This record gives sequence, structure tokens and C-alpha cells, in this order.
Amino acid sequence: MRPKIYLFGDSITEMSFEDGGWGASLVNHFNRTVDVVLRGYSGYNTRWALKVIEKVFDEEIVTAPLAVTVFFGANDACLPDRCSAFQHVPIDEYKLNLHSIVSFLKGRWPTTQIVLISPPPIDEPTRLLYPFIENKLGLPERTNETAGNYAKASLAVAAECGVLAVDLWTRMQQIPGWQTACLSDGLHLSKTGNEIVFEEVVEALKKKGLSVETLPVDLPVIYEIDPNDPLKSFEGI
Amino acid sequence: MRPKIYLFGDSITEMSFEDGGWGASLVNHFNRTVDVVLRGYSGYNTRWALKVIEKVFDEEIVTAPLAVTVFFGANDACLPDRCSAFQHVPIDEYKLNLHSIVSFLKGRWPTTQIVLISPPPIDEPTRLLYPFIENKLGLPERTNETAGNYAKASLAVAAECGVLAVDLWTRMQQIPGWQTACLSDGLHLSKTGNEIVFEEVVEALKKKGLSVETLPVDLPVIYEIDPNDPLKSFEGI
Repeated sequence: MRPKIYLFGDSITEMSFEDGGWGASLVNHFNRTVDVVLRGYSGYNTRWALKVIEKVFDEEIVTAPLAVTVFFGANDACLPDRCSAFQHVPIDEYKLNLHSIVSFLKGRWPTTQIVLISPPPIDEPTRLLYPFIENKLGLPERTNETAGNYAKASLAVAAECGVLAVDLWTRMQQIPGWQTACLSDGLHLSKTGNEIVFEEVVEALKKKGLSVETLPVDLPVIYEIDPNDPLKSFEGI
Repeated sequence: MRPKIYLFGDSITEMSFEDGGWGASLVNHFNRTVDVVLRGYSGYNTRWALKVIEKVFDEEIVTAPLAVTVFFGANDACLPDRCSAFQHVPIDEYKLNLHSIVSFLKGRWPTTQIVLISPPPIDEPTRLLYPFIENKLGLPERTNETAGNYAKASLAVAAECGVLAVDLWTRMQQIPGWQTACLSDGLHLSKTGNEIVFEEVVEALKKKGLSVETLPVDLPVIYEIDPNDPLKSFEGI
């Protein structure tokens, strides 16, 4: 009955239903118009995403989703000579992989809006406090500069494919003190960071005419029900 | 691919994806195991719910959901001689309607767990500050005593039908200062109130063996991926 928006990504997607999370905010925003489906896979990079994409978007999904957010790159951008090297994907492969993800989705559902979300900026000193794996070198596993390169690559792919893009890396660094204002552990999102992703996704979809103002509402809303004859609103449903 | 839990109810369900909401917490809790589907309809009582139930759970839903939470009563319990009388449903009809809702769901999906959630307690003085409609009498549109009667009725229906029950009315009043600790406007839920609903639903489902410990996880989790050979985890997927 309701159209769907899939959120496909890594931990920043998987964790998007924590308090104030951008995924939860999307459900709340579209609460009578769209079903938001969480497909976040912590730690995944685009290489692994491609290994599972046919399973994630399997044949049981018969109706084209309204939109899919594709939010990978934070793990691809792990440095190849640091402690999280096993998640690293070279930037050229990252671009190819994003192209393949977009091609898969477009091939399956030509009308579905795709939103490529870039990785966020990285606060390197804070990353040292949150190693995923033993950090023998004592150096951050990601740098902000490299994350920026992957962000630019994701924007380039979005432009090449003609799909929607959110440049989180640039957008967040416009916030004074973004290191702690937007990020909770130098990588994942704070409440403000989550608000930014939510707002950017809503804005991106609006560009394609997808908004609560235009989407059909599921069943009569209370403000339209006549207190003197409430059942009238339910005739013919 | 993933089983579903539907949240069917009134505004306390529709608003369950606001910050710290119980619906969002369920998605977060079950983030790799279950899809949580929001079907909240602000202002609805059981009479209106029955008018729309075949549309809410339409024929397109081919797979039996894992569970459905049914959370109505707060509006049925509006007093018939106060300002929100148009939402009132007599308690005997409320019981019959809940029976009909359970019958519909059980008839459609015999294996689906149904969780009947009782209405929460009411803080009458605070309700006067949040009239939904012009309050000429200056009296609260709901009372805690009446909400309690509807809560008992919902528990009775759950027992009669052999489905799961959450007695929110009693549970919340065990919290000191529940009026403001559990409620935000004398009716809807505060952060603590949302946590209670989340915990009670998780506990109820656990009684039937539905928990993150027992449900299959969607795709390899990062902690099980071998850093020395990550692609091994994706063989045969």
C-alpha cells in the first residue's frame, strides 16, 4: 500500500534508529506516507555490499521502491596501512563499485530515486579513542583528507550516473566545531550529525518531487475527520 | 527476507519514531533481524480501526508477520460528555472491537503473535493544557480512572483470546511521579514512557521465543568477519 524507501549502507545506516537517528527521523517525517526499510550493515564497504546486494534487494521485492539511499565509503576509506586495513577498498575500485551498485538498482527499478550519500568527515584525534581492532601503530585508521577524497569520488559517481547526491563531508565541515558537533566518536553521527543527514535526504528527495506534501496519505487524518459525523470519513474505504 | 513486526495503533504508535520513541527503539533493537512497520493513525479508536483494518493489512501482505502490536484505547476512553466525545467508544463496544481486531489478525495469520497494549494512565491536570478541540467545559476529556477501566478491558480481551498483553496503565503508575516521568502531555509518552513500552514489547515477544538471540541475522556481522580473509564470509551468499 505504501511506497518504500530503503536505507542501504554501513554502520552509519545501521545505527540510524538510535536516539535522534536520521533513519528514525525519516520514518517520523513520512509516518503516513512511506515505509522506511533499514538495510544497514556495520563495517561493510562497497566490495562487500556488492557481494550481498542481490540478497538485500531480492526477487521478493516486487514493487519498485520510491528511493534507495546508498551510504558507503567510510569503511572503504580506511587506510591500507593502518589497523582497519581489512575494510579498505582502493578509491578506483570504490568508484567502480558505486557505479555497479547504482547500475544494479537502476536496472532493477528505472524509476527509483537513488541518493548517494558521501562519507562524513573524520576527526582523527577522536578516532584514536575508538579503535575497532587493536591499534598497534597508535595512528588513526582513517584520515579526514582520505575521507574527503572518497566523498569527492562518490559525488563524481552521482554526477556520472545522474542520481541524487549528498555531500556530507563538505556539509558537516561548515558547522563550527564539527568534530564534536556532528560526530560522536570521530566517525559516527551525533544528534546534530543525524539531523543533517535527515535534512539532506529530505531535501534531495524533494528535488524529485518526493515529499510529504505530494505523497498520498494513508487513510483519513484526524484533522479532516468531522467531529459531528466521524464515520463519514471512512465510507468507501 | 526479514520477518516483519507491525505496529498498529493510534497517535501513541504514530508518534513512536520521534526522538527516543518506542517504535524507533524496536527497529534499533531488531536492526539485523526484523523489519518494523509503522501503522499508527492519530486520533483513531477501535471503531475506526475496524473500518480500515482490511486496508491496513491488505492482501498484498503475503507473508505472515512475526507479530502485530495492537495499541488502541486511549481515544475510546475519551469521556462521552466532554470535548473529545467524538472519539469515545463505549467500553463494551471497545471490548468487542478488540476481539474483532484479534480475530481478523488470527484468522489471517494463525502463527502471528499479537500484543495487546493497554492505554497508558492519564494525568488529568496536564490534559487541560493540551485540548485537541475547544474545551468549553474546562474539564479534562479523559480521566485516569476511565483509562484504567479500558486498560482492564484490554487485558481481559487478551486473556480471553490467549494473546500477549502489556498493562501499561498499571506499569507506568509504578514509577514515582509517573504523571510527568512517563507522560509528556498527560497522555502521550515521555522518553521514559517510550522506554517502558519498548521494554514491555520486547519482554512480551521474548515469552514466545522471539528475540534477537533467537531470530536469524541478516548477512554476516562484522565481528564474525575474518580480518585476514574477509571475503570468505561472503562465499555462497
